[in-house]
Amino acid sequence: MDVVIIGGGAAGMSAASKAKRVNPDLNVIVLEKGKYVSYAECGIPYFLEGVVPSVNDLIHYRIEEFTKNRGISVRTGIEVLSINRDEKMTNLDNGERMRYDRLVIATGVSPKIPENLQFEGAMGLRSLESASAIQEELKNASNVGIIGDGVLGIELAASLVQRGLEVTVYSRHNAVFKHLGEFVGSEFRKYFESKVRVIKDSTIERVARNGPGFEVYYDGRQDKYDLVLFATGTYPNTSLAKKCSIITDERGLIVVNEKMQSSDPEIYAAGDCATTINIVTGKKDWHPLAQISNKMGRVAGSNIGGSVMIFPGSIGTTLVKVFDYEIGFTGLTLDEALKAGFVAKSVNIKAKSRANYYPGGSDVFLSLVYDTGTKRILGAQVVSKDGGAWRLNTLAVAVQSKMTADDLFYTDLGYTPPFGPVWDPIIIAADSAMK
Amino acid sequence: MDVVIIGGGAAGMSAASKAKRVNPDLNVIVLEKGKYVSYAECGIPYFLEGVVPSVNDLIHYRIEEFTKNRGISVRTGIEVLSINRDEKMTNLDNGERMRYDRLVIATGVSPKIPENLQFEGAMGLRSLESASAIQEELKNASNVGIIGDGVLGIELAASLVQRGLEVTVYSRHNAVFKHLGEFVGSEFRKYFESKVRVIKDSTIERVARNGPGFEVYYDGRQDKYDLVLFATGTYPNTSLAKKCSIITDERGLIVVNEKMQSSDPEIYAAGDCATTINIVTGKKDWHPLAQISNKMGRVAGSNIGGSVMIFPGSIGTTLVKVFDYEIGFTGLTLDEALKAGFVAKSVNIKAKSRANYYPGGSDVFLSLVYDTGTKRILGAQVVSKDGGAWRLNTLAVAVQSKMTADDLFYTDLGYTPPFGPVWDPIIIAADSAMK
Repeated sequence: MDVVIIGGGAAGMSAASKAKRVNPDLNVIVLEKGKYVSYAECGIPYFLEGVVPSVNDLIHYRIEEFTKNRGISVRTGIEVLSINRDEKMTNLDNGERMRYDRLVIATGVSPKIPENLQFEGAMGLRSLESASAIQEELKNASNVGIIGDGVLGIELAASLVQRGLEVTVYSRHNAVFKHLGEFVGSEFRKYFESKVRVIKDSTIERVARNGPGFEVYYDGRQDKYDLVLFATGTYPNTSLAKKCSIITDERGLIVVNEKMQSSDPEIYAAGDCATTINIVTGKKDWHPLAQISNKMGRVAGSNIGGSVMIFPGSIGTTLVKVFDYEIGFTGLTLDEALKAGFVAKSVNIKAKSRANYYPGGSDVFLSLVYDTGTKRILGAQVVSKDGGAWRLNTLAVAVQSKMTADDLFYTDLGYTPPFGPVWDPIIIAADSAMK
Repeated sequence: MDVVIIGGGAAGMSAASKAKRVNPDLNVIVLEKGKYVSYAECGIPYFLEGVVPSVNDLIHYRIEEFTKNRGISVRTGIEVLSINRDEKMTNLDNGERMRYDRLVIATGVSPKIPENLQFEGAMGLRSLESASAIQEELKNASNVGIIGDGVLGIELAASLVQRGLEVTVYSRHNAVFKHLGEFVGSEFRKYFESKVRVIKDSTIERVARNGPGFEVYYDGRQDKYDLVLFATGTYPNTSLAKKCSIITDERGLIVVNEKMQSSDPEIYAAGDCATTINIVTGKKDWHPLAQISNKMGRVAGSNIGGSVMIFPGSIGTTLVKVFDYEIGFTGLTLDEALKAGFVAKSVNIKAKSRANYYPGGSDVFLSLVYDTGTKRILGAQVVSKDGGAWRLNTLAVAVQSKMTADDLFYTDLGYTPPFGPVWDPIIIAADSAMK
C-alpha cells in the first residue's frame, strides 16, 4: 500500500514514522517542498537571537534517520501541484505523477501578510529557509521593525533586543499581546515597553523596501528600519485540498474527524492545516501548535497503519518566554468563554512564586476562568518570572481533565519553599473561584 | 459557642481562621504548647543552611494577626493535659479547666527517635524551638552526623554541606532515599554521595553525647561528631486523644471522616495527627504534609463554623530540593501499587528537560506507575535539575484526576524550547505506558 505524505514538518514526519512503525509493509513517501524536514520552527527566534548557533541545530532528525533507519522515502524540493482523487494520483512540479492508496496532507501554514502591506521581499517567519534569509539581513541591521504583537511578535522582539538590536513593535491594540488580558499582562507589558519601542493603536498604511532599508508608513507618519519583519499571523496551506474539493471550513482548514480523515476517507490531514476539537467548547477549532501537530500526525499515521488511534482534541495551551517572563495560556480566556456561551467569570490572583522567606521569588499573575454554575475550570492565563511555565502546564492538566474549582483546590501539589508557598497561587485562585 | 483548638501549627491556625471567618460569632481559642504559632517547619533546613537569616522569618503570620485582625484568642506556652468528653472540658497544665462546644485536635507530630538510640539531649527536627537550639549547636560544629536518609535526612544533609560543614548520613538501606526507586534516583544518588559521606546498610547500636561532641556506634565501629541529628521519622502526637478513648488507628492516628470529625462528632482532628483518604487506593492513609494539613484544618474550621466542606483525601505529593536536584513523588510507587492490590507496572524514562538545541537543560528521570488493565496513572517519581518540581506537580494533577495513560498522552502541555522538548518527558512516559 502506497502512503504519500505531503509536507515534512512535525505532523508529516510523525505520520510517516508512526505509519511505518505500525505497519512496516507500507510504502511511505514524504514529499517536502522545501529542503528541510523534521525541523523545529519554534526554535527560530533563538537562532536569530544567537542562542542557537546554526539553523542545522533546529533539525530534530536528519533525513538519513528517516530513509536509512525508518525505511521512509523522503523527497525534498518537490511540490505537489494537484490531487486527482478519482485516480488517487498526485501531480508533482517535476511533471511526475505519484499514486497513493492513502494520502496525508500536512502542509502547515504560511505567514499571513495583510494584502495592502505586501511587497516584493516582504518577510514573515516560518521555514528554516526564511530563518536563514532573515539571519543574513540581520548581519547588517541595527534597527528592526516588527509588524504584529502576538506570541511570535513579542518573542521575536525580545530575541532581537537580546541580540543587541533596537526593536519597534507595531500593535493594532492599546497593549501588546492582547490575548493575555489586562491584569495578567500588566507587569510584563510595562517591562516589555522599557525594552522595546511599542507603537500602539497603530494602523499601518504601507511597508516598502527603500534601497538597503525599509520604510513603515502608519498613522500619517513614517519610520525607517534596516529590516522589517511581519508577525501578523498565519493562514493554512490548503489550496491543494480546496482544488480537489475536500471540505474546508471558513478559516480554510481541512475538516477532519477524530481519526484525522478528511471528507475523503482515504485522504488524511494533520497539523496546522487541519481542524481540531476544542475540548473545552466541544467545537471545531484551530490550534496551530507544534505539540498538537505532532500528535495529530501520529494519530493519522497510526490509523493508516491499521492501529486505531482517536484524537480527543486539544485545549491550545501556549507557552512563550519573553525576556525573563514565562507567559502562557490554556483553554479559554474570559472573553472566549463568554462568546462560547458559558456563564463564566474569572479570578485574578497576584501571589508569590516561592515561600516568602525563600530568596529569588517573583510575583505570579494568574487569571483562572471558570463556569459559574458547574465551577468547571475553562481556562487560565499565567505570567511570572519564576515558575510560570509549569504552573501553566499544571493548570492545563486541570482544564484538560475538566476539573472544577473545588477539585483544583483540593489537588495535592508538592510543596517545598524554593518552588512555591504553602498556599500556591494555583490553590489560592481555585479557592477564590470555588466560593 | 466555644471552639477550642489544640495546636497552633498549620492545621490548627487554618481551622481557627476559617471557623471564625465562616461564623464571626464563634469564640475561638487556640492553645499552643510552644511559643510560636503559624510557622513554616518546611523552612527549617533553609534556616540552618543560612539562606533564611532568622527563625522569625519562618513565621507566616504573627500572633497579632490572629488576635487583633481575626478575633481569635491565642495562648502559647499552654499544654492540654487531658480531655473530659462527658463534661466537654479540657484540663490545662496551669490548673485551668476550659470548656468547649467543639474541639479541634491539631497536635501534629514529634520526631521519632528509635528507643535504643534515645539519650538525654538527642535532637530531632520539628519545632522552631528545636531549630534555634540546633542553630546554636551548629555555630561550633564542623562535622555533623545525620541518622536517617528520608526526605528530611537528605534535605538537611544538603543544607549543612552548603553551609560548609562535613556531613555523614547513616542509611539502613543500600541507597539513600529508598522511596525514590533505583532508576529515578540513580544520578542524584551518585551526586549526593560525592558531597555527603553515606554509610549504607548500617545498623546503629548507640548514639551518645561525649563532652562537647557526639559518638555514633554502628556495625562494630565508632564515629565522632560535633553534632548528631535524628531524621528517623515522626509519630503523631495523639496521646491526648487516646487517653479519652477517641478512636485511633494502628499508626496512632486519629481516625476522621471527610468532615474531619473523630469518633466523637464534637471533636475534630486535622493535620499530621489525623488520617486522610488516599485518593489512589481509596483507603485510610497518612500524609503528614504542610499543604494537606492546611486544607484539613480549613475543612474542620469550615464545618465547625457551619459551612459544609468535604475533604476528598490526598495523594501525598512530596517535593524536595536537594543540592540542585528537584526531587519528588506523587501517588503510589510501583511497590506501593502492587501492595495495594493493583496489577501495576512502571515505565522509566530519561529524557531532556529542554529542546536539544536550547542551552541549560538537564536529564529528567521519570518513573510513571500505572494500572495495566485500566491504564490509570497511579503515581510518579521525578528527579531533575531543571523543571523537575513542576513536572511532578503536573503529574500530581493527572493522578488526582484519575487520568489514564492515554488521557495524559493527549494532554496539551504548553511547549516552548526553554522549558521542554516538543515531546516532553511526561508525554514520552505516557506514550510508553499506553502501548
